[in-house]
Amino acid sequence: MLKIGILNITSYSGMELMRILTNHPEVEVMQVTGRSQAGKTLGEVFPFYNGKLKITESLQEDVDLIFSALPHKASAEIIGQYVNNDIPVIDFSADFRLPIDIYENIYDVKHPYPSLINKFIYGLPEKNKEEIKSSKFIANPGCFPTCATIPLLPLENINISNIIVDAKTGISGAGRSQNINHSFSEISDNISAYSIKGHRHEPEIENNINKNVYLTTQLSSITRGIFSTIYFQSEDKIDIENYKHHFDGMPFANVYSEPPRVKEVRGTNNCNIFIQELPKKSNINNYRIISVIDNLVKGAAGQAVQNMNIMFSFDETLGLNNMALYP
Amino acid sequence: MLKIGILNITSYSGMELMRILTNHPEVEVMQVTGRSQAGKTLGEVFPFYNGKLKITESLQEDVDLIFSALPHKASAEIIGQYVNNDIPVIDFSADFRLPIDIYENIYDVKHPYPSLINKFIYGLPEKNKEEIKSSKFIANPGCFPTCATIPLLPLENINISNIIVDAKTGISGAGRSQNINHSFSEISDNISAYSIKGHRHEPEIENNINKNVYLTTQLSSITRGIFSTIYFQSEDKIDIENYKHHFDGMPFANVYSEPPRVKEVRGTNNCNIFIQELPKKSNINNYRIISVIDNLVKGAAGQAVQNMNIMFSFDETLGLNNMALYP
Amino acid sequence: MLKIGILNITSYSGMELMRILTNHPEVEVMQVTGRSQAGKTLGEVFPFYNGKLKITESLQEDVDLIFSALPHKASAEIIGQYVNNDIPVIDFSADFRLPIDIYENIYDVKHPYPSLINKFIYGLPEKNKEEIKSSKFIANPGCFPTCATIPLLPLENINISNIIVDAKTGISGAGRSQNINHSFSEISDNISAYSIKGHRHEPEIENNINKNVYLTTQLSSITRGIFSTIYFQSEDKIDIENYKHHFDGMPFANVYSEPPRVKEVRGTNNCNIFIQELPKKSNINNYRIISVIDNLVKGAAGQAVQNMNIMFSFDETLGLNNMALYP
Amino acid sequence: MLKIGILNITSYSGMELMRILTNHPEVEVMQVTGRSQAGKTLGEVFPFYNGKLKITESLQEDVDLIFSALPHKASAEIIGQYVNNDIPVIDFSADFRLPIDIYENIYDVKHPYPSLINKFIYGLPEKNKEEIKSSKFIANPGCFPTCATIPLLPLENINISNIIVDAKTGISGAGRSQNINHSFSEISDNISAYSIKGHRHEPEIENNINKNVYLTTQLSSITRGIFSTIYFQSEDKIDIENYKHHFDGMPFANVYSEPPRVKEVRGTNNCNIFIQELPKKSNINNYRIISVIDNLVKGAAGQAVQNMNIMFSFDETLGLNNMALYP
Repeated sequence: MLKIGILNITSYSGMELMRILTNHPEVEVMQVTGRSQAGKTLGEVFPFYNGKLKITESLQEDVDLIFSALPHKASAEIIGQYVNNDIPVIDFSADFRLPIDIYENIYDVKHPYPSLINKFIYGLPEKNKEEIKSSKFIANPGCFPTCATIPLLPLENINISNIIVDAKTGISGAGRSQNINHSFSEISDNISAYSIKGHRHEPEIENNINKNVYLTTQLSSITRGIFSTIYFQSEDKIDIENYKHHFDGMPFANVYSEPPRVKEVRGTNNCNIFIQELPKKSNINNYRIISVIDNLVKGAAGQAVQNMNIMFSFDETLGLNNMALYP
Repeated sequence: MLKIGILNITSYSGMELMRILTNHPEVEVMQVTGRSQAGKTLGEVFPFYNGKLKITESLQEDVDLIFSALPHKASAEIIGQYVNNDIPVIDFSADFRLPIDIYENIYDVKHPYPSLINKFIYGLPEKNKEEIKSSKFIANPGCFPTCATIPLLPLENINISNIIVDAKTGISGAGRSQNINHSFSEISDNISAYSIKGHRHEPEIENNINKNVYLTTQLSSITRGIFSTIYFQSEDKIDIENYKHHFDGMPFANVYSEPPRVKEVRGTNNCNIFIQELPKKSNINNYRIISVIDNLVKGAAGQAVQNMNIMFSFDETLGLNNMALYP
Repeated sequence: MLKIGILNITSYSGMELMRILTNHPEVEVMQVTGRSQAGKTLGEVFPFYNGKLKITESLQEDVDLIFSALPHKASAEIIGQYVNNDIPVIDFSADFRLPIDIYENIYDVKHPYPSLINKFIYGLPEKNKEEIKSSKFIANPGCFPTCATIPLLPLENINISNIIVDAKTGISGAGRSQNINHSFSEISDNISAYSIKGHRHEPEIENNINKNVYLTTQLSSITRGIFSTIYFQSEDKIDIENYKHHFDGMPFANVYSEPPRVKEVRGTNNCNIFIQELPKKSNINNYRIISVIDNLVKGAAGQAVQNMNIMFSFDETLGLNNMALYP
Repeated sequence: MLKIGILNITSYSGMELMRILTNHPEVEVMQVTGRSQAGKTLGEVFPFYNGKLKITESLQEDVDLIFSALPHKASAEIIGQYVNNDIPVIDFSADFRLPIDIYENIYDVKHPYPSLINKFIYGLPEKNKEEIKSSKFIANPGCFPTCATIPLLPLENINISNIIVDAKTGISGAGRSQNINHSFSEISDNISAYSIKGHRHEPEIENNINKNVYLTTQLSSITRGIFSTIYFQSEDKIDIENYKHHFDGMPFANVYSEPPRVKEVRGTNNCNIFIQELPKKSNINNYRIISVIDNLVKGAAGQAVQNMNIMFSFDETLGLNNMALYP
């Protein structure tokens, strides 16, 4: 049994990780941290957890793998020491996802451990599976970049342009935060755009696919899920059958012949995809993709477990093979 | 035109009052306060407001009527001076609703102006219309007490017992507050009980109807509305026709032959009521009432305008005669 | 007082019209039809309606204006006779919005009264106010076309291209229909795309602005509202100040400096707009517009009343001047 | 591996059963029926299902256990033959839960197989575990009776009275039905009471606990879950510690010291309970219980799997040991 430690369990992605690992046959969660709630049992803070774990302030080193659900900067500050001591880490934050100049520019902070960035592999298994296999340190991708990058991977070598990612997200992506704008009264029966001057995930997507992208992030009146409508143009026609075959052997990326609905992936690690050539109205071809994920699973905790499975040579789908909770 | 001042406009009930008064032909809102947002225009804080009003820190006295949407204690502290200067006030808080001993006990504060309590009339027009007519100072009732008291008024002189008020409320009743428990992620697809050791509105209901009551307050996954299911027993049979006639001439209290749904009163000042004799299973008669209101209208701002209409001899329904926003 | 008849009151847009007209000082609703519920009082079907009207099967001709909330084809079949008898009509359906060839092609029906199409004016006051003034027959625009066309009007003479309208709509736009896909269990916590092969409103938008458009229609987990994110490109820079001035004197079209949220127009006739030049990433300029309306008000009943106001020389905002129901 | 057949998979409880059995290590679902969709693959109807199963019109007999998710009457009509052939059956319908006179009275039908009623055991493991162990035919309890009966079991031998069950349910309890009253527009932001003349589950609860009960069933604006607030009176004081110990050894019934929220059991087989002595206001003791379940899991499919586990001597919690999907 792999001994697991979780940093910052008291976040939605932290508890989602707990939910998934509870049913994973090869691991045992040994330690969980959460500064403001340290000293309490996990069940006192989250009554839907039945186990015995207690929340501590920091992590002892006798674990085989650390998941960090800390926010950016705070994560690097704390996991630096574990990385230096060669303890495997999967980091949910943005701290090790990007080249340092892009990172420091868009997050507007000084990176606490720049020398460690090169040790980390960007953990999007649909793109980097081989590198993940041989790595001990994983930068778990952002939720929007996961949902936008996967369906664009088959187009890597095609000259597509004018890429627009119109993304709608559930409010759980904003975390367990005290924010009047995230209250039920404000979100219910509402839709709003945010980070309108440029969301931090836009450069992450561009870095992934090596193309320019405009990303619009919009809060929808749902709890879980990202629904991305992606538009692009191409001089040459896209071969849709080829496109589908790109995902052969990737258990969580599925192309459907009807547009997926976001609830169909709720609680799962799936990225469901629909691609369509639009009726021709000019001398260029227009395409539309719809892709959906659960932001807390494939967009965070589930992808982290998928990365762990690959790193530790478990079956890639272990602990992640459930059907959606629907309705 | 009546010149109106509003204290603490930056609350949900404050803005709801603004919404109602905007369409009231006999008044003009001249001043609005809101400490943390003072200096801004009202439209900067609430983009759905189109007018020119600016938020100030305090109120000048050249108004004909003040509505206070301040929380308890803070309200008494501030409106005391206006009352002393004989400016009419309608107070949304609990500060002048109850005898001082009950008030200080359940709100666990020292009343700032105990001598003024007797100047105030409890502003439930279905109960106290005549007193309201001749008063300058109104204590606007609480939302749960409004929804529970009105349907029990016809039973004032009947010996009913074992009264249970099972109340479900929308989250807007909790106000515009930064509270993790009121976030969309926590409230959506959820139901929870709160103030389980005794809600402050329980003694207010008991004071209104002069009978013992058990009140359960429950947060529902809705924004607006209170849905109360009221159970009671009676040795004698209730005459349902008499019960209905009690509300003759009361424009906002309506008895229906089918149970009302809470959305049917959304945005209106109505209290819709259903009463039913349950099948007899013992030697006592059991009854069930369902009553619904919009907590921000009949439970706060609308009732305040109804009180104003009565105080200033306008038609009781002026500005309040709209249909529900449905669906 | 203008005497009004409403065809097919038993739809969401029909009852929304009733809600608005109830507070309109210059009209009285005299007759309402609704085939399946004929014979009942309106209050029996919609308990939130307090009045005395009875639902009839058909309309007598002694009215000054007819609103038809019938579906397409059924509407033309029934209002043809009234038009022939020169009774003013405002039609909510698509029957008189489009040139006959486009109409018959996209709605896949034979038009029942092709000769009447030319009598009708497309009732988008922000575009056609003068024609509406002098017309007796109005084709009320579709909800998506209203939300997409208004913000594109200032760009009529600019050479913009690659226009994408990513539209999210509340479920009330689908009407009061028995459809398993519109049940709460299916829509709640969900987002889905529909009419993916081409929504009927796409050619209506193209006809309005005389440019090619790709429209994506998506069901959101809300009841009311359309939130459109519009993308386009332009060789020349757009003058944003000029853009804003285009709407001067139009009471319901407002440009904001922050992106509007859809709930901010709930229950109102407003179309709130935000426009933004995106960071330049190629040799062409990219723009993003966000526009929101309430699909039942500006997208249907409210716009119909605005058209009536213009036709009958009432103030354009009469009966439509309320604040949003928020939250 | 136990070979499973499911009748009427195309219901919410049928697919929920599929979800649970997919992760159950001791069973394999071999056949699924669904009349209107027969011939399609299960994935065509429910895209969130990834497997290969095809929907058939009827079930072959080469299975070890049949789950019937058919509605009442239809269920008895079809499973009668399997019971006669001694194939184990767990029936979700009400057909074998009640004495025939009560059944025929409240369901207003003639029972198709009265002689089989005695073969069935009422499958509430917290009450009947020993009988379930030795039975081949299980009548799976109703959702409201499950949520109301479990917390009342410890009081079986205490003289409690005036029992009121105020139950709030998610709309998935109504099934996958085309009903205008269950559309998102009607349910969202709404609460309503139904079956106000007497819900069919009221006699089922009374039959379970051998006491009179008044049940109120209310539709809440949520998809999954039942939240029951139960009131009762008792001459003698209830020993709360004894009450809690009653559930020792029952893995899915848990008493909490704070009132549970309904989302805390979403996707789980738990029944979470809170009990409280209310402040004494008369010469009798008043109590309030709050109990929550997921209507599709503990209220249907999960309880069925729990019954299967007991019947076939698997661990009672096998396949049911997951954490709630929260938020």
